[in-house]
Amino acid sequence: MHSDSSILSKINNTVELLADSTSYNSVCREHRLGEPVPSSEKLGTIVNMIREILFPGFFGNTSLRPNTVRHYMGVYLDELFTLLSEQILAGLCFECEDRKSIDFKEQEKYAQSLAADFIAFLPEIRRILVTDVEIAFVGDPAAKSRGEVIYCYPAVRAISNYRIAHRLMQLGVPLIPRIISEMAHSETGIDIHPKAEIGESFTIDHGTGVVIGSTCIIGNNVKLYQGVTLGAKSFPLDEQGNPIKGVPRHPIVEDNVIIYAQATILGRIRIGHDSVIGGNVWVTNNVAPNSKVLQFKARESSFKDGAGI
Amino acid sequence: MHSDSSILSKINNTVELLADSTSYNSVCREHRLGEPVPSSEKLGTIVNMIREILFPGFFGNTSLRPNTVRHYMGVYLDELFTLLSEQILAGLCFECEDRKSIDFKEQEKYAQSLAADFIAFLPEIRRILVTDVEIAFVGDPAAKSRGEVIYCYPAVRAISNYRIAHRLMQLGVPLIPRIISEMAHSETGIDIHPKAEIGESFTIDHGTGVVIGSTCIIGNNVKLYQGVTLGAKSFPLDEQGNPIKGVPRHPIVEDNVIIYAQATILGRIRIGHDSVIGGNVWVTNNVAPNSKVLQFKARESSFKDGAGI
Amino acid sequence: MHSDSSILSKINNTVELLADSTSYNSVCREHRLGEPVPSSEKLGTIVNMIREILFPGFFGNTSLRPNTVRHYMGVYLDELFTLLSEQILAGLCFECEDRKSIDFKEQEKYAQSLAADFIAFLPEIRRILVTDVEIAFVGDPAAKSRGEVIYCYPAVRAISNYRIAHRLMQLGVPLIPRIISEMAHSETGIDIHPKAEIGESFTIDHGTGVVIGSTCIIGNNVKLYQGVTLGAKSFPLDEQGNPIKGVPRHPIVEDNVIIYAQATILGRIRIGHDSVIGGNVWVTNNVAPNSKVLQFKARESSFKDGAGI
Amino acid sequence: MHSDSSILSKINNTVELLADSTSYNSVCREHRLGEPVPSSEKLGTIVNMIREILFPGFFGNTSLRPNTVRHYMGVYLDELFTLLSEQILAGLCFECEDRKSIDFKEQEKYAQSLAADFIAFLPEIRRILVTDVEIAFVGDPAAKSRGEVIYCYPAVRAISNYRIAHRLMQLGVPLIPRIISEMAHSETGIDIHPKAEIGESFTIDHGTGVVIGSTCIIGNNVKLYQGVTLGAKSFPLDEQGNPIKGVPRHPIVEDNVIIYAQATILGRIRIGHDSVIGGNVWVTNNVAPNSKVLQFKARESSFKDGAGI
Amino acid sequence: MHSDSSILSKINNTVELLADSTSYNSVCREHRLGEPVPSSEKLGTIVNMIREILFPGFFGNTSLRPNTVRHYMGVYLDELFTLLSEQILAGLCFECEDRKSIDFKEQEKYAQSLAADFIAFLPEIRRILVTDVEIAFVGDPAAKSRGEVIYCYPAVRAISNYRIAHRLMQLGVPLIPRIISEMAHSETGIDIHPKAEIGESFTIDHGTGVVIGSTCIIGNNVKLYQGVTLGAKSFPLDEQGNPIKGVPRHPIVEDNVIIYAQATILGRIRIGHDSVIGGNVWVTNNVAPNSKVLQFKARESSFKDGAGI
Amino acid sequence: MHSDSSILSKINNTVELLADSTSYNSVCREHRLGEPVPSSEKLGTIVNMIREILFPGFFGNTSLRPNTVRHYMGVYLDELFTLLSEQILAGLCFECEDRKSIDFKEQEKYAQSLAADFIAFLPEIRRILVTDVEIAFVGDPAAKSRGEVIYCYPAVRAISNYRIAHRLMQLGVPLIPRIISEMAHSETGIDIHPKAEIGESFTIDHGTGVVIGSTCIIGNNVKLYQGVTLGAKSFPLDEQGNPIKGVPRHPIVEDNVIIYAQATILGRIRIGHDSVIGGNVWVTNNVAPNSKVLQFKARESSFKDGAGI
Repeated sequence: MHSDSSILSKINNTVELLADSTSYNSVCREHRLGEPVPSSEKLGTIVNMIREILFPGFFGNTSLRPNTVRHYMGVYLDELFTLLSEQILAGLCFECEDRKSIDFKEQEKYAQSLAADFIAFLPEIRRILVTDVEIAFVGDPAAKSRGEVIYCYPAVRAISNYRIAHRLMQLGVPLIPRIISEMAHSETGIDIHPKAEIGESFTIDHGTGVVIGSTCIIGNNVKLYQGVTLGAKSFPLDEQGNPIKGVPRHPIVEDNVIIYAQATILGRIRIGHDSVIGGNVWVTNNVAPNSKVLQFKARESSFKDGAGI
Repeated sequence: MHSDSSILSKINNTVELLADSTSYNSVCREHRLGEPVPSSEKLGTIVNMIREILFPGFFGNTSLRPNTVRHYMGVYLDELFTLLSEQILAGLCFECEDRKSIDFKEQEKYAQSLAADFIAFLPEIRRILVTDVEIAFVGDPAAKSRGEVIYCYPAVRAISNYRIAHRLMQLGVPLIPRIISEMAHSETGIDIHPKAEIGESFTIDHGTGVVIGSTCIIGNNVKLYQGVTLGAKSFPLDEQGNPIKGVPRHPIVEDNVIIYAQATILGRIRIGHDSVIGGNVWVTNNVAPNSKVLQFKARESSFKDGAGI
Repeated sequence: MHSDSSILSKINNTVELLADSTSYNSVCREHRLGEPVPSSEKLGTIVNMIREILFPGFFGNTSLRPNTVRHYMGVYLDELFTLLSEQILAGLCFECEDRKSIDFKEQEKYAQSLAADFIAFLPEIRRILVTDVEIAFVGDPAAKSRGEVIYCYPAVRAISNYRIAHRLMQLGVPLIPRIISEMAHSETGIDIHPKAEIGESFTIDHGTGVVIGSTCIIGNNVKLYQGVTLGAKSFPLDEQGNPIKGVPRHPIVEDNVIIYAQATILGRIRIGHDSVIGGNVWVTNNVAPNSKVLQFKARESSFKDGAGI
Repeated sequence: MHSDSSILSKINNTVELLADSTSYNSVCREHRLGEPVPSSEKLGTIVNMIREILFPGFFGNTSLRPNTVRHYMGVYLDELFTLLSEQILAGLCFECEDRKSIDFKEQEKYAQSLAADFIAFLPEIRRILVTDVEIAFVGDPAAKSRGEVIYCYPAVRAISNYRIAHRLMQLGVPLIPRIISEMAHSETGIDIHPKAEIGESFTIDHGTGVVIGSTCIIGNNVKLYQGVTLGAKSFPLDEQGNPIKGVPRHPIVEDNVIIYAQATILGRIRIGHDSVIGGNVWVTNNVAPNSKVLQFKARESSFKDGAGI
Repeated sequence: MHSDSSILSKINNTVELLADSTSYNSVCREHRLGEPVPSSEKLGTIVNMIREILFPGFFGNTSLRPNTVRHYMGVYLDELFTLLSEQILAGLCFECEDRKSIDFKEQEKYAQSLAADFIAFLPEIRRILVTDVEIAFVGDPAAKSRGEVIYCYPAVRAISNYRIAHRLMQLGVPLIPRIISEMAHSETGIDIHPKAEIGESFTIDHGTGVVIGSTCIIGNNVKLYQGVTLGAKSFPLDEQGNPIKGVPRHPIVEDNVIIYAQATILGRIRIGHDSVIGGNVWVTNNVAPNSKVLQFKARESSFKDGAGI
Repeated sequence: MHSDSSILSKINNTVELLADSTSYNSVCREHRLGEPVPSSEKLGTIVNMIREILFPGFFGNTSLRPNTVRHYMGVYLDELFTLLSEQILAGLCFECEDRKSIDFKEQEKYAQSLAADFIAFLPEIRRILVTDVEIAFVGDPAAKSRGEVIYCYPAVRAISNYRIAHRLMQLGVPLIPRIISEMAHSETGIDIHPKAEIGESFTIDHGTGVVIGSTCIIGNNVKLYQGVTLGAKSFPLDEQGNPIKGVPRHPIVEDNVIIYAQATILGRIRIGHDSVIGGNVWVTNNVAPNSKVLQFKARESSFKDGAGI
């Protein structure tokens, strides 16, 4: 194939180096025959199926005639149960360390019961998403119809994935919620940690660059613009200097708050209800209810020197 | 399939709840047999075909020999006409409310005439895009060739989609322009509303997080950096408290303006020609021509307390 | 197909306009029979294969048994060599202007030797990426396991693509490195120029909107947050008013620096070691070691006027 | 692309010859915008869907729990109705000559009513196919289970396609039945004309090379082996020397007949009930009930001359 | 979707009829969650992988350099083991009736041990297939090279599938061998039952229509032509009138026999070694060694009556 | 992955046996980097493209408007030239033994000139195929339209592949013609050797099982039925006992001959013009013009013994 012997020896030598287990011990993953593996492709199918279940007719071909819609829901839930049970099981297998002590059949049944619990929550997810769609439609002068909002707005996609992932996270499913939220992150630039708690009638305009951290608590009727960060400032460290896990470290945003583009809000602070945070500000302290916070006025000058700024 | 009767009854119960039309009435869409539906996949094909028509040889295999290029253009336009007519019709069907009063055959012919009008505008789109490519190449010290700019730069992709979507919007096509601009948004992080008006020799560096609102007017030779928002500040409300649609509410940016990363410019203000807006500023007032606007100087201090900021 | 003669004549007329070579001369690309063309799809396969080589078992199905892992590495490198040689050759062909003076067979051999040199560097790329994964895991209280970091974190994906593209750039491969970095840019919103130099233990939290320019130099143990720009302020122009290529114009960031969300740092300045740059600041001057730089305090006021900000 | 001018001129010249309409006038087909076209791929989907409807769980994932099987049937029939209506319409459009005189909307409704009539016949098709499966299973000592027969036996596939195509033919659908029977012909080597009439409990062993002509009439409980032809001998010609269409010209095979491999039975003859036709015979006359017909005894001799026969 | 109420009621009515379990009880198959199902697609992958293992470089891209071929074999066998274990398990599950009494984990281990036993036999399969390829090449004046024989000849494909399926059958794997032989049957028109026993240096010219029954025994160096049947004449019936399974009922063909096109040889007879059977004969009795058997001479006459034969 | 050490050692042991080059030396193929390989998938694309060129509108979407058909032909031929040049080159590389002595660039040019020569012959292929379609339509009482014949009849597909492969064979292209004819063989059961010479107005009814050998010569207006063999009887051997290549050994069939189902005609004999060969006969001698040849009359008897024949 490639006659040059120096090329061959380079490649052969590299094979040995890469096959040396000391070089990959901390960054490898072992499959076990018969265990399912997490699959972005299957999770994409699952999320699309759920979106069609929640918004019938938008992402599939559900017929809306009285009897037929029931048939579609019946088939979707049956297929969803199968697919989701497998991926939940894959998540359980991914995280578990000591597989010898685990009864695989028990894990499989546990995964199925989690899948059924998730399915039972779908009507509630639909109820909340209806409030999200409504507020996005009403609040955007450029929106022509609820249909356009559902079909085109990245916020609806990202918030749908979040509400799905959040429920799975509440049920204790490992890894899978994170994959689902990263799928939305990649598609929309909106990064909502599945552990965050977010109220009803939530919307994000444009969305790219939004970050909502894992211990955030967001009230009802909150609106964010692109580039908003609800992040952590610094982490308490344990005695070894590692961050202590699970400490609340992200903001609490109360009801009816609007946060404009590129605002960065860090730490376990509280943004009081009915406040407005202007764009491009850096906020690390509590904000009282009914406040507005704006960037210090920019310096404006006449621009004569052609070279720079 | 799953023997556990509690799982079965959960799923069966959820089927009934999800099939209850009161729960999905505002978030469903009804297909009608024989009507085309908007398809992201087909629109992706359409946009790729147009990109190959505009930049021959980059995204397909157009042969550039004198006679053959004509054959390719002939075939592409013939196929484009068919595909685009269908998707325009799908857009018309998506938005129309009262289908009984509509003559489907008339709609179909109308869609075809719009497709032909769009096609007739392609040479002008190519002419403008050539100016966009040129300015991106000339203005970027890292660009090796125009080919690299066309093939790799997200700005070229986003601006191409915008110019296509903008023309379709001008022709009155519903929904489809928005889908096309959201495709670019997802791929590049650049969100340009198809209704915005943008002059020649326009470029965006890096691009992620850029938002250009629907009533923006941008002159010639304007350059934006990543994270720039040209957005709306607040909306006049009607008597019911809903935003009034169609009011100009986004900035006017005159010729030869540069806007640096993360600047947020809101409201129907005017950024005068030949101005420079520095990064991370929040601008809500007019800026005179030949101005420069910079963020108020940051506070700098020595950093001793290891814990935080 | 479409009987309306005005439609036909519009289309026919447009064919002629688009086939006029003066309209596309500067934006076309000519294929030559037998020459490979750059392919995003094949480069996607290449990058996925490399990710599986570096992190065995995460993105493929490498079996980790002692002998078998060697077989997998042997097959992957053999296939990688073939695929990469072709794409490197495609990159060489893309950029070369005067093809008549080039010996195709020589180019082909040169591409193969570059591919082999790249492959020989893979163990070193793995070694550095292990430090990146480690710092991301240790520094994030929300991370459950190294596996989650490797599988889900966009930073790992973007930094992997960067380290691959950077090596190809060092070897002098044209175009291909840029395509690889733009693939990560599209998927993660993180835009790292393949020419930038970045030390070990590097991480980016969330990541969307990060830009790292082509002449950046970044030390070890640096952490960036979403929306951070390490960019250029202005370019020295040559006598024709075009930017001079290759001049250092992006920041130097020393070891142990943290830069928070949306900070914009422009120009050939130096951010001293062990400094912290707060979010949303605009920095265009050197920062001394052990400094912290924060945005000027925001204006906060009570919010009473319902209309706007 | 290819510099050699003689190659170019050959190709260019051929373009002109092939674009000359006199050369393709009798072998071309014109599409009309908006009309569906027959699609082997969609018909393959349709046939697979019908096979899953008829034999639940074999070719799809129908869940057999009491309520759920109804949901699956409901969804399959809804999707089948849409797909089949379109393909029936495509068949109607394919055959019609004078399209100007046709009301497209009427055709569309007609296609839908035919699709519904076909669907209403599916339970009867299932009933008959159950008899076919049963006789194949009982009569084959090598068959392990009915499941193996349904899943693996080419005869079941060919007879299923036939029974589907036959019903469509009876409903007057053009072209589509023929495509469906040719799909089975290509997969199994069994060529049953959709117009043939075939009773219950019909089976074909192995099957390759079986031909059953369009005016055949076959009773109940008939078994054919591979290579059997039930064909036409010669056709009455009209005054122009063309075959007269629609004249019965293929055999009638009565109940309980077995026909062994490679037998060729030609013309409108009658094979009486309970007869056996041996392999490799050529039969062009009536055969009385309860007969057996065998090839004249072969010549057997000692074989010494190594060269040939 | 379809307004006509008679269409709707037809479809709804059919749903009920098709969901009535009495109509499908004997022709359905129940899946169990977690059990693999037989998959033609996966078996196609398996067979292609085995063909590449046996004939390196023909159906994949195995590199033949000394070390690398070992890596390829290692990876192929590792992947084959996984895929084949699953499909063998699917076969075991397909056939087993009383699943409650089965320990799934035991079945899984059993499937794996069968897969390993099959793999251990691959070198022997290669050894025999080499003799088959050799005789096909040497015996066909039209064959240009062994490569053409391996790459193009349907006989090699059919015999390969047979030798694979035969070994799986010997190991006691249900269903899967039959699916593999039917795949070859569909592609080549050659139907070899996996239970048949066939010696070395076996070839089939052209092949379409060849049938080799399940209890056939074929010696070494036998050549068949298209349309040859080695079948059963009639079956002994048990007291219920059903065929008795497992009785030898197909021919024994000794070494060095040639059988010409369309010959039909039925029953447990013996074709003695070094015999030639001419085409189109019907043979139901033993044939002595060194014999030739030819069809009784055809009737030839002058052809004057234009109408028929 | 699979813990059982006996399984592991079986697999590891098999790897070594299969990697032993003495076991695969005669049945392997070596790729060379940069050389194209024959691809069934690409040849399928090529054949489909040619079918669309020959029968515009049947297998693609060629628009038949006067100017547009020319554009389509121009694009198809341009793409065909590229694809076919590559596959011809692959064929040349497949067969050549001593690659060291070959100038690759010369081979590439030679492949291109053969591709152009083939393309220049396409109008003639269309002209002949029109006669084939015509005779199939006129001669079949069941044919509804020429469109049905072109779209559905396996004979048209097989004869088209033959006429394409035959021309490539005449031009001296190795391997590729055989692959193209085997594609038709697999799809239709009709096996026509590309070297055979066949006149105009040729048709095959049903077709499965037809074999036409490589040195056959067939006149004009010949019709075959399914299962007909035009084969070789025995081959003259050279001194080593191998068949002498290239000797005429298949029948000559003169004009206006009809050959019925399952007839086997062997050897370099001549079937005189205007003859009819009845089904299931075995013919190894010349047949005079205007003859008819029928099978000796079958033995018919009453059938009383229920057991067998």
